[in-house]
Amino acid sequence: MKAVRVVGYHENLRMDDVEKPELKGPLDVIVKIGAAGVCRTDLHILEGQWEEKAQVKLPYCIGHENAGWVDQVGEGVKHLKKGDKVILHPLMTCGLCRACRFGDDVHCEDSSFPGINVDGGYAEYLRTSARSVIKLDDSLEPADVAALADAGLTAYHVVAKAAPKLRPGNFCVIIGAGGLGHIGIQYEAVSGATTIVVDRNPEALALAKKIGADHTVLAKDDDSFVKEVLDITKGKAAEAVIDFVAEGGSTKTGVKMLRRNGDYYIVGYGEDLQIPTIDIISTEINFIGNLVGSYNDLAELMELAAQGKVNLHTQQYKLDDFQKAIDDLTNGKVRGRAILVP
Amino acid sequence: MKAVRVVGYHENLRMDDVEKPELKGPLDVIVKIGAAGVCRTDLHILEGQWEEKAQVKLPYCIGHENAGWVDQVGEGVKHLKKGDKVILHPLMTCGLCRACRFGDDVHCEDSSFPGINVDGGYAEYLRTSARSVIKLDDSLEPADVAALADAGLTAYHVVAKAAPKLRPGNFCVIIGAGGLGHIGIQYEAVSGATTIVVDRNPEALALAKKIGADHTVLAKDDDSFVKEVLDITKGKAAEAVIDFVAEGGSTKTGVKMLRRNGDYYIVGYGEDLQIPTIDIISTEINFIGNLVGSYNDLAELMELAAQGKVNLHTQQYKLDDFQKAIDDLTNGKVRGRAILVP
Amino acid sequence: MKAVRVVGYHENLRMDDVEKPELKGPLDVIVKIGAAGVCRTDLHILEGQWEEKAQVKLPYCIGHENAGWVDQVGEGVKHLKKGDKVILHPLMTCGLCRACRFGDDVHCEDSSFPGINVDGGYAEYLRTSARSVIKLDDSLEPADVAALADAGLTAYHVVAKAAPKLRPGNFCVIIGAGGLGHIGIQYEAVSGATTIVVDRNPEALALAKKIGADHTVLAKDDDSFVKEVLDITKGKAAEAVIDFVAEGGSTKTGVKMLRRNGDYYIVGYGEDLQIPTIDIISTEINFIGNLVGSYNDLAELMELAAQGKVNLHTQQYKLDDFQKAIDDLTNGKVRGRAILVP
Amino acid sequence: MKAVRVVGYHENLRMDDVEKPELKGPLDVIVKIGAAGVCRTDLHILEGQWEEKAQVKLPYCIGHENAGWVDQVGEGVKHLKKGDKVILHPLMTCGLCRACRFGDDVHCEDSSFPGINVDGGYAEYLRTSARSVIKLDDSLEPADVAALADAGLTAYHVVAKAAPKLRPGNFCVIIGAGGLGHIGIQYEAVSGATTIVVDRNPEALALAKKIGADHTVLAKDDDSFVKEVLDITKGKAAEAVIDFVAEGGSTKTGVKMLRRNGDYYIVGYGEDLQIPTIDIISTEINFIGNLVGSYNDLAELMELAAQGKVNLHTQQYKLDDFQKAIDDLTNGKVRGRAILVP
Repeated sequence: MKAVRVVGYHENLRMDDVEKPELKGPLDVIVKIGAAGVCRTDLHILEGQWEEKAQVKLPYCIGHENAGWVDQVGEGVKHLKKGDKVILHPLMTCGLCRACRFGDDVHCEDSSFPGINVDGGYAEYLRTSARSVIKLDDSLEPADVAALADAGLTAYHVVAKAAPKLRPGNFCVIIGAGGLGHIGIQYEAVSGATTIVVDRNPEALALAKKIGADHTVLAKDDDSFVKEVLDITKGKAAEAVIDFVAEGGSTKTGVKMLRRNGDYYIVGYGEDLQIPTIDIISTEINFIGNLVGSYNDLAELMELAAQGKVNLHTQQYKLDDFQKAIDDLTNGKVRGRAILVP
Repeated sequence: MKAVRVVGYHENLRMDDVEKPELKGPLDVIVKIGAAGVCRTDLHILEGQWEEKAQVKLPYCIGHENAGWVDQVGEGVKHLKKGDKVILHPLMTCGLCRACRFGDDVHCEDSSFPGINVDGGYAEYLRTSARSVIKLDDSLEPADVAALADAGLTAYHVVAKAAPKLRPGNFCVIIGAGGLGHIGIQYEAVSGATTIVVDRNPEALALAKKIGADHTVLAKDDDSFVKEVLDITKGKAAEAVIDFVAEGGSTKTGVKMLRRNGDYYIVGYGEDLQIPTIDIISTEINFIGNLVGSYNDLAELMELAAQGKVNLHTQQYKLDDFQKAIDDLTNGKVRGRAILVP
Repeated sequence: MKAVRVVGYHENLRMDDVEKPELKGPLDVIVKIGAAGVCRTDLHILEGQWEEKAQVKLPYCIGHENAGWVDQVGEGVKHLKKGDKVILHPLMTCGLCRACRFGDDVHCEDSSFPGINVDGGYAEYLRTSARSVIKLDDSLEPADVAALADAGLTAYHVVAKAAPKLRPGNFCVIIGAGGLGHIGIQYEAVSGATTIVVDRNPEALALAKKIGADHTVLAKDDDSFVKEVLDITKGKAAEAVIDFVAEGGSTKTGVKMLRRNGDYYIVGYGEDLQIPTIDIISTEINFIGNLVGSYNDLAELMELAAQGKVNLHTQQYKLDDFQKAIDDLTNGKVRGRAILVP
Repeated sequence: MKAVRVVGYHENLRMDDVEKPELKGPLDVIVKIGAAGVCRTDLHILEGQWEEKAQVKLPYCIGHENAGWVDQVGEGVKHLKKGDKVILHPLMTCGLCRACRFGDDVHCEDSSFPGINVDGGYAEYLRTSARSVIKLDDSLEPADVAALADAGLTAYHVVAKAAPKLRPGNFCVIIGAGGLGHIGIQYEAVSGATTIVVDRNPEALALAKKIGADHTVLAKDDDSFVKEVLDITKGKAAEAVIDFVAEGGSTKTGVKMLRRNGDYYIVGYGEDLQIPTIDIISTEINFIGNLVGSYNDLAELMELAAQGKVNLHTQQYKLDDFQKAIDDLTNGKVRGRAILVP
């Protein structure tokens, strides 16, 4: 079958003809790929940023946002059958450790990550575990939802985590209205709190407003926009800041928007978080790390998608045109999310 | 009356003869001081560290860990009467703001802090609010509990906050077995989790063991003790780290003891917290700020004290000997907690 | 001043000329009534249902859903002044007990209930406590929001309590789309869960659909509608049932709609809850009691009202026409909520 | 192999020679039974009480509290091997449904219950799922812990559920100091709340006191003991009542011990819960159903057992003497818990 693979860091991806994956264990599932999201993390992989963490042997096939149809199931799999339309949770998890059993499968003690440390979905077929497969509602198609498998899931996860403490009259600042922020805003907008979106890009803010932001503030090089945010809150500051950026100084300015006893959610990454401990304890603020959501989170997100409550802009490319998708993403020419389809 | 006051930063305290405080509002309470804890923060005040934050006009009377007897009550106070034996929550709070109404009175939008920004308890009498007064059980005396009003309350607060996520089989690392840590260990020890105490002082560790620590580990200049801690957890690392130090590099080594999805509680202060955001998000860890506990927390702590479940070592000094207490604390000659008594 | 008073149970209300209430304590507030909701509980009071519980001495003035303008404040009140436009939390609470300090002021250990056990708002003026007063946004008027002070607040409280466990893909059944249900549906509709409203009145269901219900089911004398509800859930049953009726057999049929580990919220009252304990433990279901919301809940509800997210249909009557309002309510002629205005 | 089976309701159990169970699926595990608890539910099964619910075809082997050693594992099982010393969670669960993934495996949508609706542990071998198996600490033996698999797990589960709301100064009433209550008291005793144990048996109360109860109250036919309990609470009543009985009128008297906003945990069963809805809503109390704990709960309980913090009195019988164990239990001659051993 066709598979687009990493053959070397700082080199282009290459399409190879490889063996179709086979069932190895009783809970394995082979999925025919219907759509694979092209993610900025894929660029970072090629740049070698994940080389040390992933410890994957080259060449291997990337692609970690996958949806399609069940092709084969292991003998222990009773709830899936060939032809089922499905989306895949990005991790393959054991289901037996304490974390998996608590719904915290993202912290499974024995997981794999197709597209990161085993073969992923820039291909015709992918092997995953029965535990990672979610059947899609009739109304949804793989190409519509594939990018929700990771980018969407991360945004949903953090907003759902913040929600219980955000009440009417509270303020939630969202820093970054890009790929993830764009999903987060849609979901946050239905909460009772007032949503303030901060971004350096006026177009991103225009979109934010359209999909539900109560207020938008343009970030600039000086810190004057912090005051703009505080003024919107009438000086009370925000109960939560969700930082989808966390680079270029966003944490330093973001913390200034947070009120006493508030929560600062870190989703993006790049810079160091650096803050005097006296500032943390005297205001009793918290910094909350955020990774991708759980299987159950993804199942909930698929419910919202089926109900039409979360929408994703996508731009499709044939799998054969993978290089153009990568180039367009690199050059900022993708509107919404790039998707590879067969 | 006698009052020990700050007359200038980087100067000695001075005992003055001042007017006894008077009731100013219907909810005011005048308390005859029975005991006032001498805290390291008092030293920091003299060093000028709080000058900018407190914005208090000199001279003023310090002392923020106070207990004694009710002397006078305002006309709106129905639940207290002269002679009641009491401990004082360190803050005077409004009772009307959203935070106060939620039990989060530490974040009151209109509070004062006797001993920090208004006159405190190194004196014969103190004015506070009826909202800050807790009646003591017959079995407790002001001198026994005064130091629980701030140091003890902070330790109790953080341990109670950590408790719900600490289950049998989990590990809780406590960094620092000094004044606060010493209280925290006693309370943590009854939870189901396994408690590992880390300190640079072998005597502090011996005491920690005696009052309930399951394991103790001596901190040294190199990081080898991190491995000792991890070995005790059989490589699983700790679900919670409670850092009563947060200076001298403790946060950098402490984070290495934390497992994925774990919580790092910052109680002490001094250094900057500095950590790459990619490390925060890839392990989904949290940094939780901690200040003093609420009024309800202090009421609970007084229950534990009355039940004999929390004990405090104290060393008493007459109010007239305030300078000796300060000097002993400065010179590391206080065992447990120094207390000024009439 | 004018005051409409209960002069005897099973007798008509009577308008009397009485002394205007005076400040009695430093935290008292006198409010000029701008609107007083007429509630079914007022009818129950006249029927004597509250005689034993309230132990109020007749004659007294009823009316427990009040809004208006501040007229006078006690000397201890700093945050309110004459002319402030306000709504009143239905209880006068102490602010000092453990419950008040935890935001659970509804369970204050020393509260009064104007209109139930002390003089209420069917009058020109009312005395309450500064703790019970919420300033209204400029965009809101007393007559628009008065009925939210009790009916609306109860509905908001229960829906907010249920919300954290209701996720996309879950089902919430609301039994009763009347005065309270009507508010609850509006608020529930924005949650991720699917809302199914059950009522015996087709018109009430039509309104429910209009204001956000995902599904409506007509209740009938036989139990066939239970199957209709279960079919909508595809046999999974509901994670939550909110029963605004709790009489006429609603709890017996309602429980059949609840899934294992589900929550049954009792808001209405009238019948006994009767259920075999083996059914409770073998499915591990919970029955959750619900009273009116807290002060902070009402503050949040006023935020939603100011944002236009909760709307109330009202029918106004002059205070002098109180008897007509009572008669109309008795005879089912009130659309939405009856309100007395000056 | 030997298997003690139900051959007819209202008949004695019979020891049969049957086929040893075989692996049927890739995640199956065959366990050599080292100990099987004899539970009152086993008597109820023989009385036919579970006939309709279990729908099990006779003859079948009972026994739902099992521990022993792994004998064989399916090809998909990597974390267990022959000879491992283990205890079994009572349910076989799917691991794929939403409930299983949330740690709420007790409400698995596709579970079996060995000893109730498939063959259980009064035998030499038992088939279960790899998901149900917990390895025992070296210090624990099957005969010591088997009865914790169900009775102990239920008691642990309810006390852990109640714990977060029970603070120092609060009161927890435990009704019933028998098999389950006995475990619950040990665990509850370390919480900060004051524990009051109520039982009709003075010997049970003496034991309760010994293992940690703060107060004990003898239940009698009249309700005078309710006042005794309330007096201990100084009229405040209990934040939680855990009812291990729920028959013979215990719920009616138990509710009288509960304070406003309190939680009534139903663990035992037998009678109907019957209470006016007005009493539920006017005090805003909750009734919480309780079944056996989850797999993770059992893992925690095994930690406590290994730490020596939970102890169980047992009386051992050879499997061949099963009838004597049943007779002794029927006749009240078992001290602690009866256990069948090979």
